[in-house]
Amino acid sequence: MATHKLFLLPGDGIGPEVMAEVEKVAAFLTESGQARFEIEKGLVGGCAYDAHGQAISDADMARAQAADAVILAAVGGPKWDDVPYEVRPEAGLLRLRKDMALFANLRPAICYPALASSSSLKPEVIEGLDILIVRELTGGVYFGEPKQIIDLGNGQKRGIDTQVYDTFEIERIARVAFELARQRGNRVTSSEKRNVMKSGVLWNQTVTALHKRDYADVKLDHMLADALGMQLVRWPKQFDVIVTDNLFGDMLSDVAAMLTGSLGMLPSASLGETDVKTGTRKALYEPVHGSAPDIAGKGIANPIAMIASLAMALRYSFHKPDLAARIEAAISAVLDQGMRTADIAAKGEATVSTSAMGDAIVAEI
Amino acid sequence: MATHKLFLLPGDGIGPEVMAEVEKVAAFLTESGQARFEIEKGLVGGCAYDAHGQAISDADMARAQAADAVILAAVGGPKWDDVPYEVRPEAGLLRLRKDMALFANLRPAICYPALASSSSLKPEVIEGLDILIVRELTGGVYFGEPKQIIDLGNGQKRGIDTQVYDTFEIERIARVAFELARQRGNRVTSSEKRNVMKSGVLWNQTVTALHKRDYADVKLDHMLADALGMQLVRWPKQFDVIVTDNLFGDMLSDVAAMLTGSLGMLPSASLGETDVKTGTRKALYEPVHGSAPDIAGKGIANPIAMIASLAMALRYSFHKPDLAARIEAAISAVLDQGMRTADIAAKGEATVSTSAMGDAIVAEI
Ligand SMILES: CC(C)[C@H](C(=O)O)[C@@H](O)C(=O)O
Ligand SMILES: CC(C)[C@H](C(=O)O)[C@@H](O)C(=O)O
Repeated sequence: MATHKLFLLPGDGIGPEVMAEVEKVAAFLTESGQARFEIEKGLVGGCAYDAHGQAISDADMARAQAADAVILAAVGGPKWDDVPYEVRPEAGLLRLRKDMALFANLRPAICYPALASSSSLKPEVIEGLDILIVRELTGGVYFGEPKQIIDLGNGQKRGIDTQVYDTFEIERIARVAFELARQRGNRVTSSEKRNVMKSGVLWNQTVTALHKRDYADVKLDHMLADALGMQLVRWPKQFDVIVTDNLFGDMLSDVAAMLTGSLGMLPSASLGETDVKTGTRKALYEPVHGSAPDIAGKGIANPIAMIASLAMALRYSFHKPDLAARIEAAISAVLDQGMRTADIAAKGEATVSTSAMGDAIVAEI
Repeated sequence: MATHKLFLLPGDGIGPEVMAEVEKVAAFLTESGQARFEIEKGLVGGCAYDAHGQAISDADMARAQAADAVILAAVGGPKWDDVPYEVRPEAGLLRLRKDMALFANLRPAICYPALASSSSLKPEVIEGLDILIVRELTGGVYFGEPKQIIDLGNGQKRGIDTQVYDTFEIERIARVAFELARQRGNRVTSSEKRNVMKSGVLWNQTVTALHKRDYADVKLDHMLADALGMQLVRWPKQFDVIVTDNLFGDMLSDVAAMLTGSLGMLPSASLGETDVKTGTRKALYEPVHGSAPDIAGKGIANPIAMIASLAMALRYSFHKPDLAARIEAAISAVLDQGMRTADIAAKGEATVSTSAMGDAIVAEI
């Protein structure tokens, strides 16, 4: 059996607590002979800054590059609000994405039936929701230059960021979306602001041309990003796969995640290009939620998104869809049994700790 | 009694239909001696392009500049999808905003009690909702240069947009937000992506410094734009006034509008700087909804946002808050009576036409 080299980055806040549950699941899978993991751990974010003044060290970057998959929890917190921009916690995450060339961020927004009632939306609007947001992750305004603050004198400064997209960047992310759509509902909605942005015009043209050339069997729509935000709130089930740029994807995937009722449930995958020789691709898996500093250290965080991130790794990096599905089924099962961490409990419902939730999921697997 | 010079721009799609109801209300107010309007009309958007190849003519721009208030309905539609970027319908709207220096866009998201059930959100989440989004409207990625598509050869192009904010632009919009907050719940939430954007860093610093200097009595929070998108969905009533940049404001105000159940209900104001000598300011009022080409010409569009835009003009441009409130009360009253255009009708509910809704509102005033 192949050994999968995992590089774990617990990060800040609740990160270490939820990551402990991933280790528990990985240990169980190894012991029970269902998969074999070799685990290394490193530092990213505020904890890395505290340890050595960088949001991620070169040594940990090298380990991330060498791993079969990186599993990251979350970075950041008020403690590091005033550290210099270049070494702020998020810089570690952004460096991982950029240096590993993880251009494709997959963010499923699914609604667990047992949790439909914890959404702020009406049950009929979100029951059965299953959409996949494919977000471009290494381009756009996140990385374009110039990106700077200029001192203009007289107390005036100028902040500049640059949104840049090349044809090839748009094509490769659109390709990911079309390929994934073929395995799902066969529909892609591409989103930009072509009515005000030139990068949006190019995005629209490039996706349209690629669709015509290679994916005419997939249904393609275009929707302006502001309209898409509204439609997500109005009737999210109209979507199958949504493909959009880095910044719009950041916002829209968060809105989509919140529709489902709990952010604590949703994992994401960030993938690089597949190496034609080895058939492998660099990958990083992380929950959609943040580091939740307000509840860190209390043992009450929800580990489900974190464990579901390992399931995603099994599906996308290790070609073990059955095992991924088994973990996901175990998650559904414990939810159906009524197990709730505080974030997903209805008023008056009993809650369990982070580790009790992890134990229950292991028991179900 | 002062005469208010209105410049009406019905634009495209349902624009002319809903604008006719504004004319009805304005005529009634004039006849009944409650206000005096002098009305001119012009072209903007696709209809302007069809008439003379420009999204708005210089002559109409001059009329807009000379008016006491511009009332615009909506622009755009599939008919003009392929016109050159520089003369696309939206260019008319953007030119109005830029040339009139309408830097402050006020987008109230309120929930009409009679319509709470038509929202996709649970009633308890949106009942009584009353938030105000203050969006910067003449800067950011909408107008920054370079903004272009470059041909790189080899079939590759590069799309570039530039987000630019100067200290003074951030200060003046934040000032508007703080001033308005003092008249409401006294709380401002400022939103950007300072964790990835330098303009966000400058935004955050500038708002913080201004707050300390001149508005320490107002409660100020900062929230990342993606987190704000989520929080709007989760529990929108936590907000009072939100201040944010042009692009984030575009998306967040649309999401906020959709929370309330019907976009057809919500007006917006775009304001310039107050002239210290005359005490007047340039202003444009428009509904949040678009031109809805799919239902244009059928006489079924909802004119309420359009009529509410006139009410906003009475409040912000003509210092007639009582008359504004009377119109808003008339809108609430007809809704309480059960009058519904198709967009806000529950399944099986009887619907009325655009003009019947306008008549009913006039009758209530
Ligand atoms: C932490 C932050 C830099 C990051 C982003 O903006 O991409 C986060 O919001 C995300 O969506 O993964
Ligand atoms: C029509 C379009 C250019 C405009 C914008 O993006 O600002 C619209 O979406 C709005 O919010 O007023």
